[in-house]
Amino acid sequence: METLILFEAIKRSAVGIFSEEGLQKRLARGKPLKIKFGADPSRPDLHLGHSVPLRMLRKFQDAGHEIIFVIGDFTGMIGDPSGRNKTRQPLSFEETRQNGESYLEQVGKILDPAKAHIAYNSEWLGKMDFAEVLELASKYTLAQILERDDFANRYASNQPIGLHELLYPLMQGYDSIALRADIEVGGTDQTFNLLVGRELQKDYKQEPQEVITFPLLPGLDGVEKMSKSLDNYIGIGEAPEIIFEKCMKVPDSILPEYFHLTTDIAAHEYSELLASDIRQAHFVYAREIVRLYHGESAVAQAEKRYFSIASGNAPDNMKTISITGGRILIVELLKQAGFAMSNSDARRLIEGGGIKLDGETVRDANLTVAGDSVLSRGKNKFVQIHFV
Amino acid sequence: METLILFEAIKRSAVGIFSEEGLQKRLARGKPLKIKFGADPSRPDLHLGHSVPLRMLRKFQDAGHEIIFVIGDFTGMIGDPSGRNKTRQPLSFEETRQNGESYLEQVGKILDPAKAHIAYNSEWLGKMDFAEVLELASKYTLAQILERDDFANRYASNQPIGLHELLYPLMQGYDSIALRADIEVGGTDQTFNLLVGRELQKDYKQEPQEVITFPLLPGLDGVEKMSKSLDNYIGIGEAPEIIFEKCMKVPDSILPEYFHLTTDIAAHEYSELLASDIRQAHFVYAREIVRLYHGESAVAQAEKRYFSIASGNAPDNMKTISITGGRILIVELLKQAGFAMSNSDARRLIEGGGIKLDGETVRDANLTVAGDSVLSRGKNKFVQIHFV
Repeated sequence: METLILFEAIKRSAVGIFSEEGLQKRLARGKPLKIKFGADPSRPDLHLGHSVPLRMLRKFQDAGHEIIFVIGDFTGMIGDPSGRNKTRQPLSFEETRQNGESYLEQVGKILDPAKAHIAYNSEWLGKMDFAEVLELASKYTLAQILERDDFANRYASNQPIGLHELLYPLMQGYDSIALRADIEVGGTDQTFNLLVGRELQKDYKQEPQEVITFPLLPGLDGVEKMSKSLDNYIGIGEAPEIIFEKCMKVPDSILPEYFHLTTDIAAHEYSELLASDIRQAHFVYAREIVRLYHGESAVAQAEKRYFSIASGNAPDNMKTISITGGRILIVELLKQAGFAMSNSDARRLIEGGGIKLDGETVRDANLTVAGDSVLSRGKNKFVQIHFV
Repeated sequence: METLILFEAIKRSAVGIFSEEGLQKRLARGKPLKIKFGADPSRPDLHLGHSVPLRMLRKFQDAGHEIIFVIGDFTGMIGDPSGRNKTRQPLSFEETRQNGESYLEQVGKILDPAKAHIAYNSEWLGKMDFAEVLELASKYTLAQILERDDFANRYASNQPIGLHELLYPLMQGYDSIALRADIEVGGTDQTFNLLVGRELQKDYKQEPQEVITFPLLPGLDGVEKMSKSLDNYIGIGEAPEIIFEKCMKVPDSILPEYFHLTTDIAAHEYSELLASDIRQAHFVYAREIVRLYHGESAVAQAEKRYFSIASGNAPDNMKTISITGGRILIVELLKQAGFAMSNSDARRLIEGGGIKLDGETVRDANLTVAGDSVLSRGKNKFVQIHFV
C-alpha cells in the first residue's frame, strides 16, 4: 500500500493522531516502522471491539511495517483499571500466559501471523528492580497521573485507588521504551496511557512514538462500549451461529457504525442497504462477520442455524398472518394469531412465560411488535408474522 | 534496667506510643526485642535533634534489647520528603554509602557499638523486583498515603509530588518486615511512616511492631525543628569549641527543653539553675554537651576557646567596671566604660559598627545589658562588665 493511501486510511477511521505531522513524516521515510499494539490478556476472548484497531494493524502489515503485539502478561497481573471504576482482581502469572496464548491464536484471524512479532512485557518489566522502578516512577508526578479520567473520578468519589494501579500507565509506557516503538495504536480509552509512552520515550532519550487512537465500538446494548465483562460483545472466536445470531441483534441505530468500523464493505453500499431494508442489512452484516472470522463456508450453516434458533424450531410450513399499519401491540397480535381469546388472556400467557418472539421469551405485555418475526406459544404453536 | 523502669523512662520522654498496652506486654516477655531505628543518610551530620531518640535507644541497649540501626542507603536514593515541601535531590548509591559510614561513626558517640546491629536497606529493597514492588504498593491506597500531612499539603497547593515519593513510606515500612522489628523508634515527623510499618507487618502476617515517637528538638532559632539544612543545629560531630559556642546561643526560652531532651541532668537540678542564673545555666549545658560527645578532657579547652572567640581576643587583664541595678542601657554603659563622651557620641559609635558585646557587634542603640560580659570598642579597647 502506498504511504499516502495508508495515511488517508488512518485518518478516515482514527479518532486522534498525536501528532499528525509526525506520523506523516515517519511514514514518508519509507522504512519499516515498529507498530506497537498492547493487549490486555485479562480478556482472552477477542471481540469486534478489538478488531477495530487490529484491522488497521493489518493495513500497516500490508504496507510492510512491523507489528509488535505486546501481550501484557506482566501488567495483567495488576489489571488496567482504565475506564472502570473499581480495582480489578489481579491474574496469576500462569493465567496471563494462558490468556496470552489464546489471544495470539485469535489475532491470527485478523493479522498475518508471519508478519507480526509477539512480545510479552514480563520479558523486560519482570527484570526491573526496585531502583529502576523508582527511576521510572520519578518521571511522573501524582497530579499528572491523576489527570487520567478514571483515576480522577475514583479519587473524587472517594473510591480506593491502589498505589500499584498508579504505576500501570508507566509500565505500559515503558513497553514503548523497551520496544523502541515508532507508532502505538489503541482505543480512545487508552489515549492517556499511549501518550505516557510517548512522553517517557523523551525522558529515556528516544524519539517519541506517534500515537493513533481508534473509536470504541459500542456493545450490543448500544450504550456501553463492547466488553466481555458487560456481556454485550460479539467474540471473534465464537461459533459461527453465535456470531450470526448476535450480529442480527445489533441495534439498528448503531449498525452503520458496525459496518464502518468492522467490515470492508464500502460506505455507499451499506448506506443504501440500511436505508432500504434494515433487516436485510442485518443479514448482510451477519454473513460478512461470519465470513471474516470463519470463512465463506461457514456462512450458510450459520444462517440456517440462526433461523432454527430464532424460530425455536418452528415448522417449515407455518401459518402466516399479515399485519398492516407497521406496528401492533403484542396482546392484539396474540389474539390475531389465535393464541389468546382476550386481552387478559394474552397478558396471562405473557406472564406465564410461554410466549416467544423470534425464540426469545416476551416479558413485557405492553410490547409493540414492528417487524417480521416468528411468534410462538409453548413448544408447538408457531405463527409467522408478516407486515404488509 | 528493669522492664518497668525502662517503660517509665519511655513514657516520660515519648510523645506517642502505639500501643502502650502492646509495648508493656512486649517488654514484659523478658526476651531481647528487636528495636528498629531508621536513619536517613542524606543528613550525615548527626545533631542534638537526632540524639533524642538515640539516647532512648541506649536505654534499650542497656536493658538487653537489640538495636537494629537501619541505614536507609536505598531509600536515601529518593530522599524522604517528610515535613518538607519540595522534592529532594536524590543521592547516588555511593553517596548514601559514604553518608551511612559517617552516620555509623557518629552513632558510636551515643550507642554501644558492640550491642547495635547495623543494616542497610539496600540489602532487601535492592533485591526486590517489579512484581514484589507492585505487591507492596497494592497494600495501600492513594487516599491512605495522602493522609500524610506533607503529601496532603503539597497536593493541595499544587506542588509536584513524584510518584516515586509515594512509595517512600512503604519502603520504610517494608524495612520492618525484612527485619521482623518488635519496636520502632523515631521522631514525631516519622509517625506516619512508622505506623505504615506496623500496618504492613499485619499484611505480611507478622506481629505488628510497637511504635514510639519522640519530640522534635527545636533548632537554635527557637522556631523550626533542628535541621542541618536550616543551619540551626548543634552537630554531635562538630569540634568542641563550636559545640560550646552554639550551646551558649540556645535561646533562653527553650533551654529547659534542651536540658530535658538531650542531657541526663535531673529536672530539679536544671530547673533551679535556670531560675537562678540563665547565663550560668548555659555554661552548665555547654559543658555537659561537650562532655557527652568529646569527653571531660575537651571541656576546659572548649570553654577557653569560647571566651577567646566571644571576647574577640580580649586581653587577660582588662579593666573591670561594676554595674549596680541589674541592667543598664548600652549608651550609658559606653559612657561609663569611657568609650563615649555623650549619648549622641555613643549612638554614633554603635551606628559605626565598632562596638561589640561578648564579641558580637551591637546594632541596637536602645539595647539593655543585663549580664556579665565583655564590652569592646574597635580592636584594642576592652572592658569587663560586672553586675553587682
